[in-house]
Amino acid sequence: MSFRMALRTLSAKNAAALDKELMSDGAFSIDQLMELAGLSVSQAVFKLQPLNKGKRILVACGPGNNGGDGLVAARHLHHYGYTPTIYYPKRSKSELYQRLSKQLQDLAIPFTSDFPSALAATDHVVDAIFGFSFSGEVREPFPAVIEALRDTKVPVLAVDAPSSWGIETGPPGEGPGKGFMPDALISLTAPKPLVKWFKGRHFVGGRFLGEEVAERYGLDVPRYEGVEQVAEVPVEGEGKL
Amino acid sequence: MSFRMALRTLSAKNAAALDKELMSDGAFSIDQLMELAGLSVSQAVFKLQPLNKGKRILVACGPGNNGGDGLVAARHLHHYGYTPTIYYPKRSKSELYQRLSKQLQDLAIPFTSDFPSALAATDHVVDAIFGFSFSGEVREPFPAVIEALRDTKVPVLAVDAPSSWGIETGPPGEGPGKGFMPDALISLTAPKPLVKWFKGRHFVGGRFLGEEVAERYGLDVPRYEGVEQVAEVPVEGEGKL
Repeated sequence: MSFRMALRTLSAKNAAALDKELMSDGAFSIDQLMELAGLSVSQAVFKLQPLNKGKRILVACGPGNNGGDGLVAARHLHHYGYTPTIYYPKRSKSELYQRLSKQLQDLAIPFTSDFPSALAATDHVVDAIFGFSFSGEVREPFPAVIEALRDTKVPVLAVDAPSSWGIETGPPGEGPGKGFMPDALISLTAPKPLVKWFKGRHFVGGRFLGEEVAERYGLDVPRYEGVEQVAEVPVEGEGKL
Repeated sequence: MSFRMALRTLSAKNAAALDKELMSDGAFSIDQLMELAGLSVSQAVFKLQPLNKGKRILVACGPGNNGGDGLVAARHLHHYGYTPTIYYPKRSKSELYQRLSKQLQDLAIPFTSDFPSALAATDHVVDAIFGFSFSGEVREPFPAVIEALRDTKVPVLAVDAPSSWGIETGPPGEGPGKGFMPDALISLTAPKPLVKWFKGRHFVGGRFLGEEVAERYGLDVPRYEGVEQVAEVPVEGEGKL
């Protein structure tokens, strides 16, 4: 079943408030939420890049929660039979990220510091660099990475936001992300306002949103199929009545 | 793809050691492991009890980790469109279990203290009472619950072990579980030795086991399909060459 109307969006401010609520009143741990978010990302990759079309997945991880979702996704991708490689140049010192990284190392998943070479040798890229808390400033070493993602012919799946896009304002008018349009986007919990400018396949993941919370935040609970943790939804406008 | 040979089993002692290793050297949190275990359980229910065959699922939870897996499964079942009811008479005071219960309350999932009435009004039961750390003693109020599960015509899915069965010794020769044979079993991480006596559909879940750890513990990594978190495997003997 697909939506007849585009899903309502969640501002950066409300996304932060919702995350905070889920982890306080909602009684979720960040481990739980990140596990389900990363699992959703891995299922979107499975839909976009079938195993028999090339198994090499480069996961570019930023320093925050978006990067953590990428680390979780990479672990699931390994178990599905893919061969992920991780680019994670600014590792968070928090215990959670260290644990997620250790889980990957134990599966012998390689970490690389050479993004251009990794990009030249992959079938698909996950852009887990910046998410809904992106401040508008692309710090080193990410400008060159985003330019490479903009220019590559390898398909890119962005997690929650194409990195460097404004959450409310969409594609930047200048800088490394000018002209960056990933092939696909997975919005976690709910689409952010930037989806208005997005052209490509659009998924929603993070199947933990209850009706009551969704209603309070003015969101829609996506109609997932069966046990799937990801749902494909029309891009802005496309599905409108 | 199905197994030609039955999966190797994991003793109660080694199951405890493996859990401990995953949460120390393996760097997993219990939140992560329980989320993935409970998710597997929910996917087994989805296979056994299609939504259009009756949506009412009674989840009977014991005081330990097996009960926690049940609580997680119930949340996912709600999101799939089922109407779970929880029987959880001996609630753990640990923070994790309180959080898992709160997540269910926030979805308006009912908790009942009247097991017989709940059993009379359900389409399927999940037995998440005792798992691999079961000591051989069925404490109150569970003897009557296990007798009811033994006698009911409602299909029962047992999590990791039919409750009251010995992990190494299988069906008890006396007591409330004498003659208890659930319709289905989901083994988490790996089957326990009791599967030798089990007759019914058998699933394996907990898709986080790496090849290296599996080899060290003398286990098989089940061949899951696609992104599935659960795999159906032959019962002991049935699939042998």
